[in-house]
Amino acid sequence: MLGLMQDWPLTVDRILDHADRWHGDREVISRSVEGPIVRTTWSQIHTRAKQVTHALIELGIRPGDRVATLAWNTGRHLEAWYGIMGMGAVCHTLNPRLHPDQIMWIASHAGDRIIITDLTFLPLVLEHMHKAPSVERIIVLTDEAHRPAGVPDSVFMYEDLIAGRPATAAWGQFSEDTACGLCYTSGTTGDPKGVLYSHRSNFLHTFMTLQSDVMGLSQRDTVLAVVPMFHANAWGLAFSVPAVGANFVLPGAKMDGAAIHELLEAEKVTMSAAVPTVWQMLLQHLDQTGDQITSVKRVVIGGSAVPEAIVRAFHDRFGVAVTHAWGMTETSPLGTLGTPTAAIAHLSFEEQLPTLLKQGRPPLGIDITLENDEGERLPRDGKQFGKLLVRGPTIVRGYFGKSDSAIDANGFFDTGDVATIDPNGFMQITDRAKDVIKSGGEWISSIDIENISAGHPKAALAAVIGVFHPKWDERPLLLVKLKPDVTADKQEFLDFLNGKIAKWWTPDDVVFVDDIPLGATGKIDKKVLRGRFADYVLPTIHPYTPKEEAAGEPVERIVTR
Amino acid sequence: MLGLMQDWPLTVDRILDHADRWHGDREVISRSVEGPIVRTTWSQIHTRAKQVTHALIELGIRPGDRVATLAWNTGRHLEAWYGIMGMGAVCHTLNPRLHPDQIMWIASHAGDRIIITDLTFLPLVLEHMHKAPSVERIIVLTDEAHRPAGVPDSVFMYEDLIAGRPATAAWGQFSEDTACGLCYTSGTTGDPKGVLYSHRSNFLHTFMTLQSDVMGLSQRDTVLAVVPMFHANAWGLAFSVPAVGANFVLPGAKMDGAAIHELLEAEKVTMSAAVPTVWQMLLQHLDQTGDQITSVKRVVIGGSAVPEAIVRAFHDRFGVAVTHAWGMTETSPLGTLGTPTAAIAHLSFEEQLPTLLKQGRPPLGIDITLENDEGERLPRDGKQFGKLLVRGPTIVRGYFGKSDSAIDANGFFDTGDVATIDPNGFMQITDRAKDVIKSGGEWISSIDIENISAGHPKAALAAVIGVFHPKWDERPLLLVKLKPDVTADKQEFLDFLNGKIAKWWTPDDVVFVDDIPLGATGKIDKKVLRGRFADYVLPTIHPYTPKEEAAGEPVERIVTR
Repeated sequence: MLGLMQDWPLTVDRILDHADRWHGDREVISRSVEGPIVRTTWSQIHTRAKQVTHALIELGIRPGDRVATLAWNTGRHLEAWYGIMGMGAVCHTLNPRLHPDQIMWIASHAGDRIIITDLTFLPLVLEHMHKAPSVERIIVLTDEAHRPAGVPDSVFMYEDLIAGRPATAAWGQFSEDTACGLCYTSGTTGDPKGVLYSHRSNFLHTFMTLQSDVMGLSQRDTVLAVVPMFHANAWGLAFSVPAVGANFVLPGAKMDGAAIHELLEAEKVTMSAAVPTVWQMLLQHLDQTGDQITSVKRVVIGGSAVPEAIVRAFHDRFGVAVTHAWGMTETSPLGTLGTPTAAIAHLSFEEQLPTLLKQGRPPLGIDITLENDEGERLPRDGKQFGKLLVRGPTIVRGYFGKSDSAIDANGFFDTGDVATIDPNGFMQITDRAKDVIKSGGEWISSIDIENISAGHPKAALAAVIGVFHPKWDERPLLLVKLKPDVTADKQEFLDFLNGKIAKWWTPDDVVFVDDIPLGATGKIDKKVLRGRFADYVLPTIHPYTPKEEAAGEPVERIVTR
Repeated sequence: MLGLMQDWPLTVDRILDHADRWHGDREVISRSVEGPIVRTTWSQIHTRAKQVTHALIELGIRPGDRVATLAWNTGRHLEAWYGIMGMGAVCHTLNPRLHPDQIMWIASHAGDRIIITDLTFLPLVLEHMHKAPSVERIIVLTDEAHRPAGVPDSVFMYEDLIAGRPATAAWGQFSEDTACGLCYTSGTTGDPKGVLYSHRSNFLHTFMTLQSDVMGLSQRDTVLAVVPMFHANAWGLAFSVPAVGANFVLPGAKMDGAAIHELLEAEKVTMSAAVPTVWQMLLQHLDQTGDQITSVKRVVIGGSAVPEAIVRAFHDRFGVAVTHAWGMTETSPLGTLGTPTAAIAHLSFEEQLPTLLKQGRPPLGIDITLENDEGERLPRDGKQFGKLLVRGPTIVRGYFGKSDSAIDANGFFDTGDVATIDPNGFMQITDRAKDVIKSGGEWISSIDIENISAGHPKAALAAVIGVFHPKWDERPLLLVKLKPDVTADKQEFLDFLNGKIAKWWTPDDVVFVDDIPLGATGKIDKKVLRGRFADYVLPTIHPYTPKEEAAGEPVERIVTR
């Protein structure tokens, strides 16, 4: 028996319709790529997005076609998004931080017909677009007055393309399962893979994040989205902010500490979201200038583990609550969020801190679990770590253009992360699965050892990788880059680790290196390291093995078989 | 092109699964019908709900079958709900406030196979169940120790029925459009009509209400649901509270001021929801005892217009924020909610008050509009009033067992209410459509005139109805019940209205009556009044007509044609 409630497909155009009808005069404030601050409203964004749809249809775009954007966070980018999605085409956000060859490989793989770009990236597009033969057109998010010299007439200037068009194009009226957005993950191995969001998944993600224990946005908020729209939907803010009708502040191309601080204060921002690096830059700026933050109440931080110093600085100096979040392109992206629960909310800040530094709990609509190599579920004891699996209506089930499923028999997607979950339900990422060292059937967290080792006074940087061992499969090898003009011996580092990790986690050898390679996102590139040390032979006798574990010694974070 | 995100049907069993997995030890506290306070947890509720499913399957219940509940808000009622819904059967909440004949008519119309009832209503069910031949079984929400004398063995006692059963019954795994709940509206005309909620509509309603500008529940809340589960899903709390993992307090059969106050204080309730009458009783109790409310932060009030005195008392004496809400069985039920927007949040309480007394704004997922008799949309000027139409995934499209659609060509459901919407988007109900007086093509609000008239020092009660007029179709007739031992003449009341309403709204006659009939919910029964005055002949000469409206006089709330 079916219910008798209305058929109302969850298509994201309805979000902007709602903003237009009920929050029409709330503002969208952009730092334009041309320079000046541009103020507009949700109603104006709605009207102009409709004009974009009209223009795209005239350019021959049809439902299902991919239209790419290569652009900063601005009001125009937002209009292009909704203009594309509203008509049932797919908005493909290209990541300008990738190598031009990779960008064009992705555009070509997606079959993008149009690239909508900022002035910033126009030279890149013009030089490299021949590598993406599917691309027929370029639209630049500016006006004729800003057309750079030498750009051919075939390239449209956005303002002139949409000027005077009717705002009556029809939106929606298709299945909520229709594809809506496309975002490629830049995996460390293999070709980038495209996550194809549906209208339904983005709409449900919006509802999920609007819960007061999640992003908790209010109409009365003014939200600064530092996190880019090309990075997993700006963590959903491009949908959730119009959904509640908050003011939306978009930083354009300028994301240094001074520029962010200026926006925070001038626009009286109450909430913001960004990766730790951005906040580090802001805090450094505030250190140097002695400036204050006066209106911000909370910031959501994700993308990588948030350093304790950032949480403390926001709390102690500015009274700002930091909420740590975890997610990935494949999870739309929000997976977990560290809002304090009743179990910890009554504690002091110091007592809450270890929990606040974890990646948090899943809201309704997200199911996470930990699994060991044998496919067994692990308990939530905050110690045993396993593969982090995730399931829900906002989680990927396959990749664009690939026929194989990305989920297991139980419907779970393997995140590639390794994590613990504590008895209060707070998840903490402990490693990437490919970096975990599997020794005698037990798991050792490379990140834990290298974080501790990096705290040695003589260490500039430390990395831990697993290397082949004939008996235990793998054993940890500690690589240390020393500070300038410092010498050290191996035993100093082994002694430093003693008592801080389980004995059998102790690296079998320490190698001092001149250089530890970092990847594009600033993380240690372990793939390169593993290549360099592929043939490394461990000393025959090594200090500890799983079998030699002293009985009764506390064993942290090991997976029991 | 379809998206590639996971297929994860929005079925409400997943809400209780989530509460079990992530909020398992948060509490559900009931004042049991037997007397004592019973404490349980979301995990226990989950386990027992699974046992209910097992029992129902053994009793021959199959997906799509209707299982009725006739019960107070308690943990057991909650378990029965999820046990029924989880297996794909339909939980039909019967309203014990109706006449027994009407209850059995509804049970029969729905084809209920089982009635799950509290001890309170068992005598009623036993006496009248022969009028509902579809009902095969009775289950009483108690244990054998409380089996009343003379109740036949064929009647199951709940605790004994579920005891020892496995908690492994499968839930979900059907379409999210599957029927989930059934609730009949007790319309003032015609037979009651059944609203058949789907899993999807209830799940989306949950997300909708969890937005921080709507119900905004947090895991850290303790929520007292005074509003009954048989009254439109307890305004969704039976889903939204487990969804966030708040503590849930259920008052059972005792809803007087003292009993409610005791629960508020003993359980440190932070949020509650009820109709105005309940709050009136609570405030009277506090007046008499001098007691305080110490933990409640906000209350949601709906069901009928909230008197200003309640909002003031909560604000001034207890620092509690009142949020006014509007909805109906057909809207799951939340339609609008009066959370202050940026436009009014900066004002003083006094300045906010006129807005706080309105029924509020629609959240994402609800679309409302005003229409006049000609089908034209009316502006949001806070003056012109029209039929309130509503649309969305949580709004009814048809009634159980009826083939005709309940929505218009644009997908809107006509609420039967008449309302204004002000420039800030706040909707205010001004009348029921059937009570509006249509005079010379213009609309007059009967409620406005009677509210003002009731403020006359000599009036005990006042009612306004439309009576036939040969030229203007209808004109208002004011009926006044005077206070004891008071005399008055018509002109006193007409003078009292002078200047407070548009002149042409002035009633054509005033009749003093001994009695103004009230309906079951305490509202004036205008249907009875219209019957009594069906043959009433207005005086030939009446003071004002639309044509005589003085030029330039401010005309409030009229519908221009």
